[in-house]
Amino acid sequence: MQYLEERDLDYIAIGAAILGAGGGGDPYIGKLMAKQAIKKHGKVKFITADEVPDDALIIPSAMMGAPAVMLEKLPNGAEPEFAFRSLETYLQKKAFGVLSIEAGGINSCIPIYTAACLGLPLIDGDGMGRAFPELPMVTFSVAGLSVTPMVLCDEKGNKILLETVNNDWSEILARNATVAMGLSSMISIYCMSGKDLKAYVVRGTISLAREIGKRIIESNREKSNPVEGILEVTKGFRLFEGKIIDVQRDLTTGFVRGKVVIEGTGSDKGAAFSLDFQNENLVGMKDDVPLAMTPDLITILDKEKGFPITTESLKYGHRCVVIGIPCDPFWRTEAGLAQVGPRYFKYDLDYVPIEKLVKENGK
Amino acid sequence: MQYLEERDLDYIAIGAAILGAGGGGDPYIGKLMAKQAIKKHGKVKFITADEVPDDALIIPSAMMGAPAVMLEKLPNGAEPEFAFRSLETYLQKKAFGVLSIEAGGINSCIPIYTAACLGLPLIDGDGMGRAFPELPMVTFSVAGLSVTPMVLCDEKGNKILLETVNNDWSEILARNATVAMGLSSMISIYCMSGKDLKAYVVRGTISLAREIGKRIIESNREKSNPVEGILEVTKGFRLFEGKIIDVQRDLTTGFVRGKVVIEGTGSDKGAAFSLDFQNENLVGMKDDVPLAMTPDLITILDKEKGFPITTESLKYGHRCVVIGIPCDPFWRTEAGLAQVGPRYFKYDLDYVPIEKLVKENGK
Repeated sequence: MQYLEERDLDYIAIGAAILGAGGGGDPYIGKLMAKQAIKKHGKVKFITADEVPDDALIIPSAMMGAPAVMLEKLPNGAEPEFAFRSLETYLQKKAFGVLSIEAGGINSCIPIYTAACLGLPLIDGDGMGRAFPELPMVTFSVAGLSVTPMVLCDEKGNKILLETVNNDWSEILARNATVAMGLSSMISIYCMSGKDLKAYVVRGTISLAREIGKRIIESNREKSNPVEGILEVTKGFRLFEGKIIDVQRDLTTGFVRGKVVIEGTGSDKGAAFSLDFQNENLVGMKDDVPLAMTPDLITILDKEKGFPITTESLKYGHRCVVIGIPCDPFWRTEAGLAQVGPRYFKYDLDYVPIEKLVKENGK
Repeated sequence: MQYLEERDLDYIAIGAAILGAGGGGDPYIGKLMAKQAIKKHGKVKFITADEVPDDALIIPSAMMGAPAVMLEKLPNGAEPEFAFRSLETYLQKKAFGVLSIEAGGINSCIPIYTAACLGLPLIDGDGMGRAFPELPMVTFSVAGLSVTPMVLCDEKGNKILLETVNNDWSEILARNATVAMGLSSMISIYCMSGKDLKAYVVRGTISLAREIGKRIIESNREKSNPVEGILEVTKGFRLFEGKIIDVQRDLTTGFVRGKVVIEGTGSDKGAAFSLDFQNENLVGMKDDVPLAMTPDLITILDKEKGFPITTESLKYGHRCVVIGIPCDPFWRTEAGLAQVGPRYFKYDLDYVPIEKLVKENGK
């Protein structure tokens, strides 16, 4: 039997920020919560999807809203369990385990916290293999599973249970409720059978986050460059190296939309790289030629230490390396691309896998 | 056994608009719905609060949001029953009867519709004896009962169940959800025991609305002036008579706030009457001296026909009579005034009962 311990949270938080592809939020508060819960309740059983019986009930646990808000409007700590147990009561069935819906960012840590509090196992996997901004951008949704019944809880003790006619309405009503609750809520959603879990989960993403984080911390301890290790573990590509020379951000639409421009250094000297984002990094172009696009992962790393730089913390002058990571094959299907491909985000681009783009356009 | 029939709805809708005190919405759609439901399912049993056993479950049914929106975004008709049954399921108990939470305006008719669809009796009474704009402005709230568990349903089939830490949060989250649902929803709230019902309900308000409406329709048929009949039934006062010469409205705060000025005619010639409103009429002054104030009811009637003029339909030039009706004694308690008295609406005025104001300041 595998377990998650306190130390694993340091690794997972860093790795999850890399899988967050610029978004998913800073896992800091989630990491502290999960570490404290493990200290109090003991290690968390960590199982594979294949260990889950077909008829078992699995309930994902997550935070919804703006992770930055949680730094000032702290959770009271009871919300994730309250949401989870409320959904069990509504379904009149006990859950077998807890799942992450989003391995990138803070939602890698919240389910570990919930699992520790409940004494339930955490399943190694998630519904994205990365981070995305909206509730229906999950493999389970594309496969036809319903977001609802869904429960949202806030730190004041308020609870909302939703049953919607489709997953787009879940997103509208839950987003709206989260804003009214003060921009963050703790949710339980996408309850599913073990059978559906095994059919649609993106496997192994929590242990992948842990492995990425471990490599980065160990490289830093050994004073070696961590980027190669990250690329090895993620099967990723080095896309560009340079210095941030411009950052544009627009928050008026409820998302962090913007663009960062990087001036090449080293082997990329003389070239420029531009990267568009909407919470997550969407399309990266070297001298106006695409090198990677959603749903493949694009992440900016600190050049020396390899730590991920999220879209909120991009700053002029930062020396960085841009990497790209192939997304889960599920997202490359027609249905997957319809939900999270470049055209969904209003780009007049057909999706081309990063392996192909790098081979054709990368130096 | 008493019953409500189709014909009663014509009376109730008019009477409820008078009890709406300028607000509560046009009962038109609610009336049509209730009449159709009675045609389909048969007459509605109409009982007094005292006929309800102490341990029976009573569930109020209402519309939340902007009644004007319902003229274009029609209900699908299943929402009130869906909300009501969902609450029964959540409470794991069958309800004994249906109650109106607000006898003024459209919410006089919706519970009749719900009762007809469900084949349950309607209780003669409500939680206001008039109309008010917010969920906690109900006798049951002042008495300490909880708005939640509460269910909201929209015409698309979406359902939201709320459990909040207090009734102010119920108002915030339910209002917000209603806006997201498209500005109107059907709700079931304030579920209560027969014992609590009997302790706090405002009795007889549905039959009062029916009696008011009947008098008006009969007076018009006989070509006699209906105002005296209305005052007799409601124990009300004639406050002013004149012509509307100015209407100001501001909708930016989510309410209809404004003021109407009436130039005196007849025995009020040479005087002016000003009336402030926030959805409902709040404070009426003759030559700057208050003649009536919230929570007492102030309603403007068409001078000839006695039909009520709601705040939305106030127009320059309309010949009218302003009447005032004493509110239920519950609202005149300290706790009642704290929730709906003039200071709650930001007036620097101590509440004075209409009987006293008219005696002292009326001619």
